[in-house]
Amino acid sequence: MQKIDLNSDLGESFGPWKMGMDAEVMESVSSANVACGFHAGDPLVMIKTVQAAKAASVAVGAHPGHLDLQGFGRRTIGTTPDEVYAFTLYQIGAFQAVCAAQGMSLQHVKAHGALYNQAAKDLPLAKAIARATRDAGGDLILLGLANSLFEQAAEEEGVLYAAEAFADRGYMNDGNLVPRSRPDAFVHDFEEAGRRMVRLAREGVIQSAEGKDIYLKAHSICLHGDNPKAVEMARFIRKTLEDNGIEIKNIREVLKG
Amino acid sequence: MQKIDLNSDLGESFGPWKMGMDAEVMESVSSANVACGFHAGDPLVMIKTVQAAKAASVAVGAHPGHLDLQGFGRRTIGTTPDEVYAFTLYQIGAFQAVCAAQGMSLQHVKAHGALYNQAAKDLPLAKAIARATRDAGGDLILLGLANSLFEQAAEEEGVLYAAEAFADRGYMNDGNLVPRSRPDAFVHDFEEAGRRMVRLAREGVIQSAEGKDIYLKAHSICLHGDNPKAVEMARFIRKTLEDNGIEIKNIREVLKG
Amino acid sequence: MQKIDLNSDLGESFGPWKMGMDAEVMESVSSANVACGFHAGDPLVMIKTVQAAKAASVAVGAHPGHLDLQGFGRRTIGTTPDEVYAFTLYQIGAFQAVCAAQGMSLQHVKAHGALYNQAAKDLPLAKAIARATRDAGGDLILLGLANSLFEQAAEEEGVLYAAEAFADRGYMNDGNLVPRSRPDAFVHDFEEAGRRMVRLAREGVIQSAEGKDIYLKAHSICLHGDNPKAVEMARFIRKTLEDNGIEIKNIREVLKG
Amino acid sequence: MQKIDLNSDLGESFGPWKMGMDAEVMESVSSANVACGFHAGDPLVMIKTVQAAKAASVAVGAHPGHLDLQGFGRRTIGTTPDEVYAFTLYQIGAFQAVCAAQGMSLQHVKAHGALYNQAAKDLPLAKAIARATRDAGGDLILLGLANSLFEQAAEEEGVLYAAEAFADRGYMNDGNLVPRSRPDAFVHDFEEAGRRMVRLAREGVIQSAEGKDIYLKAHSICLHGDNPKAVEMARFIRKTLEDNGIEIKNIREVLKG
Repeated sequence: MQKIDLNSDLGESFGPWKMGMDAEVMESVSSANVACGFHAGDPLVMIKTVQAAKAASVAVGAHPGHLDLQGFGRRTIGTTPDEVYAFTLYQIGAFQAVCAAQGMSLQHVKAHGALYNQAAKDLPLAKAIARATRDAGGDLILLGLANSLFEQAAEEEGVLYAAEAFADRGYMNDGNLVPRSRPDAFVHDFEEAGRRMVRLAREGVIQSAEGKDIYLKAHSICLHGDNPKAVEMARFIRKTLEDNGIEIKNIREVLKG
Repeated sequence: MQKIDLNSDLGESFGPWKMGMDAEVMESVSSANVACGFHAGDPLVMIKTVQAAKAASVAVGAHPGHLDLQGFGRRTIGTTPDEVYAFTLYQIGAFQAVCAAQGMSLQHVKAHGALYNQAAKDLPLAKAIARATRDAGGDLILLGLANSLFEQAAEEEGVLYAAEAFADRGYMNDGNLVPRSRPDAFVHDFEEAGRRMVRLAREGVIQSAEGKDIYLKAHSICLHGDNPKAVEMARFIRKTLEDNGIEIKNIREVLKG
Repeated sequence: MQKIDLNSDLGESFGPWKMGMDAEVMESVSSANVACGFHAGDPLVMIKTVQAAKAASVAVGAHPGHLDLQGFGRRTIGTTPDEVYAFTLYQIGAFQAVCAAQGMSLQHVKAHGALYNQAAKDLPLAKAIARATRDAGGDLILLGLANSLFEQAAEEEGVLYAAEAFADRGYMNDGNLVPRSRPDAFVHDFEEAGRRMVRLAREGVIQSAEGKDIYLKAHSICLHGDNPKAVEMARFIRKTLEDNGIEIKNIREVLKG
Repeated sequence: MQKIDLNSDLGESFGPWKMGMDAEVMESVSSANVACGFHAGDPLVMIKTVQAAKAASVAVGAHPGHLDLQGFGRRTIGTTPDEVYAFTLYQIGAFQAVCAAQGMSLQHVKAHGALYNQAAKDLPLAKAIARATRDAGGDLILLGLANSLFEQAAEEEGVLYAAEAFADRGYMNDGNLVPRSRPDAFVHDFEEAGRRMVRLAREGVIQSAEGKDIYLKAHSICLHGDNPKAVEMARFIRKTLEDNGIEIKNIREVLKG
């Protein structure tokens, strides 16, 4: 029986500002990527998010980003591997203590926004994130974009690795995501997204925007919870996968095979 | 044979701004309180400071402060115990990961500046810091002002506790520090400071500004490294203690008795 | 014919985080207090808010707060008059340039949150805000809590002054607001709030929680826009005032008499 | 008689952290670029710096940078022209109020660090800075790198423009600075630097690293004050220029011709 993880970015509120439908999307995922205070989230939000994840039996991961709160970590920043290592290690550690305080153990690390996108194409940055993931202790799993340099980075640094695919994104023939500027960047139709994810989970194959079958090894599918439609789609994807006999398990369980 | 720890606040540089004579004062102390990024320090500075402490065989502690970089954590902030707990836990965790990455284990937690001063007189705040110290895991020691509410807080929360005295400060009859506004707030004379610390280490007694012998149980003495004279005084205090047969050991070793 | 200003705090979004129903409440007020980036708001939000105010013919004021984004400027901070002066001047200037760029002139300055509450009872802080209001240039009006030290501060520093009352708050016999912890702190009933504000505008009198008529000279009434009910109340208050022959004019026009 | 301005970056201290030998270099320059709180400086430092500039009869300019305090504004940030416009306008305004409070008028705007370097080669960014310089009011002068896109940007946006050259940097045949990675990036010899600046001021010509005479129209020369040798060089350059009959005047006076 196939297994796959469903992950979503959570804990993105900050101070008095709310973001995301965490409670709702938490019901559909098996792993939560929790913002660590640099691009979103704050210590109080982190604690509440871990408590909610624990109550929902959802595994938690650190979601470190660039130190760019106003830009939500979406701005590309010219930064060195040493800086990325230090800033990522710091955020992972902060979140580890929050997890420990709630009796949870941290499962994984997934970079956020521009840091994720930069590292996916820049081996030294990806290795810096992998190294921080390893050095923080606790046998953490690095979660990265399928078919990106994250996999090589994890391997070279000796870190457990898992790849993710996007339920609502189109893919290029080379396995990259269709750029957001193109009309076929997003898959809006629930049924289509569901079919694509079932095939991905079963066969490890996804059809590209050009109509070609491409191989994509994904341990996890990234879902969204920032608006009611996204929450509904998350719920639909989960149900479709389960209806097709695919088990939803967190990343560590999926890696066990 | 008596033992006592010598501690100092280190790692207070930030980005391109240098502060403190860390390399020099590191030679005189047995424990370093390392700023965790909220009032001073940044992830890169934290890593370098832990590396230096490791090389000097100095134990390391987290030095969490208020989120007030411009004010260096010296401004009193009206904050709730829940906020203090969350912000302290976050900073401890961030520093724990930095220590883990360098193969060091975190020894203690000592609050900084206004947070330290507020908690010393406010039991709920002191307990919040004690709880964060406990919940972060790793059997950390809370280091607090002798004769303050930190001791009660540590006891009530079930945390190992150590008290510190100040080599360069005058004391009141009730064991409190002489307010900085008074001319006798500071002890400038090296010989006098040395004599006071020897007596403190041997007898647990210090003479107040009013000339009365007061009981002060201190496991550690706080020294400074922010200017050449402070560094010289730190060196002098250490030598004086050693010349008088008092062993300089880190906090965990002092607590073992 | 009586005139009174209606003001509301706007522009409190930050980066990707939205706050407040600015577009809706903008229809009911004559003056907008715009967050200046320290406790809320950012340069992009400030520009958009001034553009919207201009389109709605609403006068704009700077709404400086403590540098405490995570706490939304609501935490009391132990700060000196010199610091308050410098931080307030900085925020006013930043907002002045935004106004100038949109061809608007800044009308007033109103401190936010804890800074407002602290200064209302601390003359040196109130004077620091008044001084910054004066020194920024442009003949700005200081808007403060009626019956507080803001009036004396403005007078001593030679700054134009206007006082505000709260449509939804109860008052004590001494003119202070009923503390938020008491059940009678808030006026929830629209009709009652409307009647109170009409009487305030006409007679300069408001009934205290203890049932006593107290004198309150207010040039402006503070309304809220953070939720649908608040927006509805704002609309109701405006309509009630107008239906009772009270003209809604911005602060500068009200001061002209 | 030729005139040229000498400028330096000042006011780069932050909170308790000192940077730069402002008092010393202030004696050698005619214009000061003052950090505005995003990459360095804070409201208190800004006020002190303007007071010092006023006392030294040095003209002041805003020195806006990326919002990256830890990185001192030296990290390239992928930002839009609208963001650069808003962030620059905010910083200029904040500094304008500080100047107004001291009875000084703001003379110019010069971008800092990565923002300067990015805009020098990116017309939309350079135009955004020029637009903010214009929209802030007060007839400000944009100061930019000679032979860069800043000049075109200023012209297109209708802003007064002045160009600067670097006393201690080598130039390429195309007028660009020799990259810092090359050994000939810097001119260390005082005599050589002095001769180059005299020729630049007299003939508008500088010899490139390849030995070719290149035309460089500069109204100002950038000097440094971050260490004793830089201060000494600044003093030497000024004296050399004056000894060769070149008058040191601030930017506005140089532009008057």
